[in-house]
Amino acid sequence: METPSLSPAARLAQQIEFIVECDKLKEIFRQTLVTKSRRAENDAEHSWHLCLCVIVLAEHANTPNLDVLRVLKMVILHDLVEIDAGDTFAYDTAGMANQHEREAVAASRIFGLLPPDQARQFRALWDEFEERATPESRFAAAVDRFQPMLLNVRTQGGAWQKHGITHDRVVARNQHVAAGSQAIWAYADQMLKEAVAAGFLADAPRSKAED
Amino acid sequence: METPSLSPAARLAQQIEFIVECDKLKEIFRQTLVTKSRRAENDAEHSWHLCLCVIVLAEHANTPNLDVLRVLKMVILHDLVEIDAGDTFAYDTAGMANQHEREAVAASRIFGLLPPDQARQFRALWDEFEERATPESRFAAAVDRFQPMLLNVRTQGGAWQKHGITHDRVVARNQHVAAGSQAIWAYADQMLKEAVAAGFLADAPRSKAED
Repeated sequence: METPSLSPAARLAQQIEFIVECDKLKEIFRQTLVTKSRRAENDAEHSWHLCLCVIVLAEHANTPNLDVLRVLKMVILHDLVEIDAGDTFAYDTAGMANQHEREAVAASRIFGLLPPDQARQFRALWDEFEERATPESRFAAAVDRFQPMLLNVRTQGGAWQKHGITHDRVVARNQHVAAGSQAIWAYADQMLKEAVAAGFLADAPRSKAED
Repeated sequence: METPSLSPAARLAQQIEFIVECDKLKEIFRQTLVTKSRRAENDAEHSWHLCLCVIVLAEHANTPNLDVLRVLKMVILHDLVEIDAGDTFAYDTAGMANQHEREAVAASRIFGLLPPDQARQFRALWDEFEERATPESRFAAAVDRFQPMLLNVRTQGGAWQKHGITHDRVVARNQHVAAGSQAIWAYADQMLKEAVAAGFLADAPRSKAED
């Protein structure tokens, strides 16, 4: 059973409270640095940069005629769970172990601030993004993995240098970019090789290559 | 005559240089404060917050069945010109006098970094946003004016207090919200009255009411 519908004005007021709560995304800082001042990027800026990537690069998706509106909705919403769950660095294997569980709790609270029909719609978009089972979510995930690599390269290694991340780990973590866009992964693969050559990204330690 | 088409890989590389250049939007700071830490908001965060407003609030647009994808493209791109032209405060009448001219020069340079077909498409979206002659651009402009008012109220007057902005000026500058959404303007109008009552926003000076 649905709860009784709100008046349009009460529905709008509830939606605006959600928008105010989401302002906190601007305070969730990532490991990636921005290119000019070299400070840490936050999730709101990252999400906008992904939106830009989507509208510029959608033509390079593996699947033609992607539903770009749905891709945009996913990237706009994808990090809101981090308001409660915090940012988990892509190479933090301990943090990643229970990441999805922590984020799912956050999704229930945050999307639950919306009117029920919209809460369900947004939660479904977040689940779709997490599952990467549709062409749209695979492309959204591709830009979500590509953009931090690009900023790391353009900040001479940025977060990679700080955390001692090696080329093999970057490839292992990000090669699913190819599931959304073979073209973007081809670019990234070459970019990573050049980053190693330039000394921005350490090559895998030879003695531990099979770890 | 078009210049000869780039190879797909060269086209992608050119698009990625545009995406890197646009990273600078994260360094363009506005007068509006974010709600939690009360620091100045930047244009990238603002643009993301507008995207969120669009997908949450599109149902309140005056025109049903809005092309939400085109609205999103406009809000993603609308402030990129400020990378060159800087942010012009909504109540800076001197800065606003030549704002459009400065921004049009910036639009030519920044969108001109893209392949020609995409440069034209993005420039047309920016022009549409500026002209506010379509339902989509009127709704995009409505959220672009509503979001700073909302943050000003939720920071106890924020930029209004700092710059001595009065209620009459806020109404005059922002009432075109109603052209995109009567419902959002009705909410804003009431919110502004409550902000005056709470002391977050000064009422118009009575002796200068006819200025």
